[in-house]
Amino acid sequence: MTKPDSKRSSVALVTGKPANAAEEQVNNGSSDPSVSGSPHHALTPPTPTKHKSAKQVSRDNLSRRNTESEVFDDGTNTFFWRAHTVTVLFILTCVLVYVTLLEETPQDTTYNTKRGIVASILVFLCFGVTQAKDGPFTRPHPAYWRFWLCVSVVYELFLIFVLFQTVRDGRQFMKYIDPKLGVALPERDYGGNCLIYDPGNTTDPWHNIWDKMDGFVPAHFLGWYIKTLVIRDWWMCMIISVMFEFLEYSLEHQLPNFSECWWDHWIMDVLVCNGLGIYAGMKTLGWLSMKPYQWQGLWNIPTYKGKIKRMAFQFTPYSWVKFEWKPASNLRRWLAVLGIIFMFLLAELNTFYLKFVLWMPPEHYLVLLRLVFFVNVGGVAMREIYDFMDDPKFYRKLGQQAWLVAAITVTEFLIVVKYDPRTIMLPIPFFVTQCWFLGIVLILSWTLWRFFIRIQIPFSTICYVYRLILKLIKEKILINLHTMAHNDKAKRGLVILENFIQKIYKNIPYLRKYSL
Amino acid sequence: MTKPDSKRSSVALVTGKPANAAEEQVNNGSSDPSVSGSPHHALTPPTPTKHKSAKQVSRDNLSRRNTESEVFDDGTNTFFWRAHTVTVLFILTCVLVYVTLLEETPQDTTYNTKRGIVASILVFLCFGVTQAKDGPFTRPHPAYWRFWLCVSVVYELFLIFVLFQTVRDGRQFMKYIDPKLGVALPERDYGGNCLIYDPGNTTDPWHNIWDKMDGFVPAHFLGWYIKTLVIRDWWMCMIISVMFEFLEYSLEHQLPNFSECWWDHWIMDVLVCNGLGIYAGMKTLGWLSMKPYQWQGLWNIPTYKGKIKRMAFQFTPYSWVKFEWKPASNLRRWLAVLGIIFMFLLAELNTFYLKFVLWMPPEHYLVLLRLVFFVNVGGVAMREIYDFMDDPKFYRKLGQQAWLVAAITVTEFLIVVKYDPRTIMLPIPFFVTQCWFLGIVLILSWTLWRFFIRIQIPFSTICYVYRLILKLIKEKILINLHTMAHNDKAKRGLVILENFIQKIYKNIPYLRKYSL
Repeated sequence: MTKPDSKRSSVALVTGKPANAAEEQVNNGSSDPSVSGSPHHALTPPTPTKHKSAKQVSRDNLSRRNTESEVFDDGTNTFFWRAHTVTVLFILTCVLVYVTLLEETPQDTTYNTKRGIVASILVFLCFGVTQAKDGPFTRPHPAYWRFWLCVSVVYELFLIFVLFQTVRDGRQFMKYIDPKLGVALPERDYGGNCLIYDPGNTTDPWHNIWDKMDGFVPAHFLGWYIKTLVIRDWWMCMIISVMFEFLEYSLEHQLPNFSECWWDHWIMDVLVCNGLGIYAGMKTLGWLSMKPYQWQGLWNIPTYKGKIKRMAFQFTPYSWVKFEWKPASNLRRWLAVLGIIFMFLLAELNTFYLKFVLWMPPEHYLVLLRLVFFVNVGGVAMREIYDFMDDPKFYRKLGQQAWLVAAITVTEFLIVVKYDPRTIMLPIPFFVTQCWFLGIVLILSWTLWRFFIRIQIPFSTICYVYRLILKLIKEKILINLHTMAHNDKAKRGLVILENFIQKIYKNIPYLRKYSL
Repeated sequence: MTKPDSKRSSVALVTGKPANAAEEQVNNGSSDPSVSGSPHHALTPPTPTKHKSAKQVSRDNLSRRNTESEVFDDGTNTFFWRAHTVTVLFILTCVLVYVTLLEETPQDTTYNTKRGIVASILVFLCFGVTQAKDGPFTRPHPAYWRFWLCVSVVYELFLIFVLFQTVRDGRQFMKYIDPKLGVALPERDYGGNCLIYDPGNTTDPWHNIWDKMDGFVPAHFLGWYIKTLVIRDWWMCMIISVMFEFLEYSLEHQLPNFSECWWDHWIMDVLVCNGLGIYAGMKTLGWLSMKPYQWQGLWNIPTYKGKIKRMAFQFTPYSWVKFEWKPASNLRRWLAVLGIIFMFLLAELNTFYLKFVLWMPPEHYLVLLRLVFFVNVGGVAMREIYDFMDDPKFYRKLGQQAWLVAAITVTEFLIVVKYDPRTIMLPIPFFVTQCWFLGIVLILSWTLWRFFIRIQIPFSTICYVYRLILKLIKEKILINLHTMAHNDKAKRGLVILENFIQKIYKNIPYLRKYSL
């Protein structure tokens, strides 16, 4: 690899904004070897106004340079990289002429309506794949990511349409997509026998474990492997993985398939499937960060083996940014990380609730398609959010894919709420509410302490506040909730919590000193 | 205005690619006065690879600099220029929550379907206006042009849907938009009495002229004023204006409202309305080209009068590129100019044919909306085509708006052909076919001569070829067409043409020498 290429790659590194993906593409398409270089740079002469922001940007991105792998590109592959706008337009016209003028139009209105909608979507994809704005990713081809962008637009519009129907119409509407849909799902029972070693079963006492070893084990592993590549942070992955198990515990009274055995939750899901997936993901991340990308053009590689290797490498990213979320560095990043975790968990819950309210069997291909979709758009969205947080001065726009993923997650959740408010509003067990309440209080107080107070609070004050909260829970909330707790589980939870508080209140002498 | 600003504007001039519109916006949003300038330019250090294309670009755009008005921008207006992606997402979420969860869903399926489709379109516009790719125009605001881009996507998808319906369903489908539509139009008679001075009418002998002085006179004037601003070329405007009158003559057997009196065609349309519109447009163009744009920020202007003037100037363009089509400079430009004229005329014809086949009354608001739409997108599309032709090495993508306008024009034409093949296939009068045939032959031969042969052809050869063509017309085509000519008009045309050819054949002694 010659010197100029490595220099050029450093340009891409320093600018650091997602738009450099597009720039790279243009350069790929236009570097004409017949035009020789000149030392003066006509495109962007150094002007005072630009310098103002330039210094800022270079400082902002100094740390970023360290988190990105090195890239070398020799700028060939011109035909491959071009968008072929005119070609696509010409082919589209030919297809339209053939289908609409030379074929006989069927007389079936329903069929024609369906066909018209599918044709509109295809034309939209044609437009979008050639013309939509490029995102941060370029490999294997920018058109691939433009395609997924357009798919997310179509999906979001579909969701909006479904959201505006009545519950009955919405469920029946799924029949247009697959006539097998629109039928109520049979009730299923999960959980059941939780013995790891079942002595009652003589043929195979471990049968409970073998029962759980179905297709969902590799699915969990693969899912978390990809999620790790998307989030690119060990800690956030672990937090989300554990939080989701807590959510399953909390919501098993609403969706029966959240109820699992304790060892299924913690050992098989968190430790084995998710843990191994995250571990493998982090290993891959390490490899991607270390890799010095050498994007030599295919025709410049002499050997066949080299050419094939280059083709395979087209499916690895152009360059790799290590995410450093640094949630505690300032309030904005902290809130953003909380928001990301919240949206991530919401999207995961939507997978299950959406199936439930739209009467989709779990093994239906649409469920799988939705996951494939999220895998493809999630990576782009997360990178855009990272860029949005990372360069606040320079790149103020929230990326388009991130915008859409947020809108999609919100719309999916609204559909769930609208289609089955009864299930969503099922009274949460009191014990569970208390746990979440405590969690939120802890997060809030840490936020306050870290970003607003920033002073060394004496331990006595903490005890005082803690005691105040306990008193409040005991005297105001618990008594009120006793009258509201309808089912036995909630009542039992209440009693446990009351005893627990009583215990703290009585047995810690330090707390008793600060009696109110 | 200080020096740095004028320097910076020259950057925008030299790069010359439409993407600079987006750059300008980013600069507007990010130039932070607290960060002081530094002489070294971290964003784009001069690298050898970039220089290759840089020299090329600067050479390509040297001529362009002369065709563009000067621009000065002080880079304020930050809040105004930002896209507010997160704000729009938040408001959208709130609206969705309100409409879908807090309002009672109506039980009417048809109403809900309509509402769902309208909501999908609105969400698409929300997404597009904040996130779509910026085009070449920035004033009054980039979001304005992104809005029209999204509208064209929606319109194109609507057309595709209509294209896939049967003729009956398609016409009835218009009832969903306006219940008054979907009814066959009454037959109308145009043309009629063509006497300029009608002695038979004693009260007002000029009544034929006053009859024509309706709302269409200012409409024609305004239309051609805007078209001139779009095309920005005196010659192309005149050619299109005259060509359209020829088209009206040629197609008056298909659409009765094309039949007008000769003085209506040539004096009132071409000379008075169109001519004055083009003249006014060219005057405005001259003013815009001369104008040195000083885009001072609103808060930096001391007087109130100045502020108001600045606000009004927001509705004038950011900078102005004089179009120099130069059709004869090379084959590519020549074909492109022919293509533009063809598409322009096709779009104009579509206005009339689409009304006819979809049973739209001429005074319906949708007809007007379509024209407003074309005025807004046409300017962007033409500029993108100009850029596409002007910088072939640098900016290879056909602009998104141009792509869409082309697709829309083609789709509209396909709808016309599919919905009323009978009218379109009405036998064209023979005389008219011959005229068009001759025109096409002339254009083809000029193209061949200018771009392929480029030698001085002896006059004798031209006469020989001309004689050959005449002989061909006389012996092969005319005789065959005599048997095919069904109506009297065609037969009369044939006879006129035959006599004409006979005359040339007999009376020019020079031609007789080269007898075949």
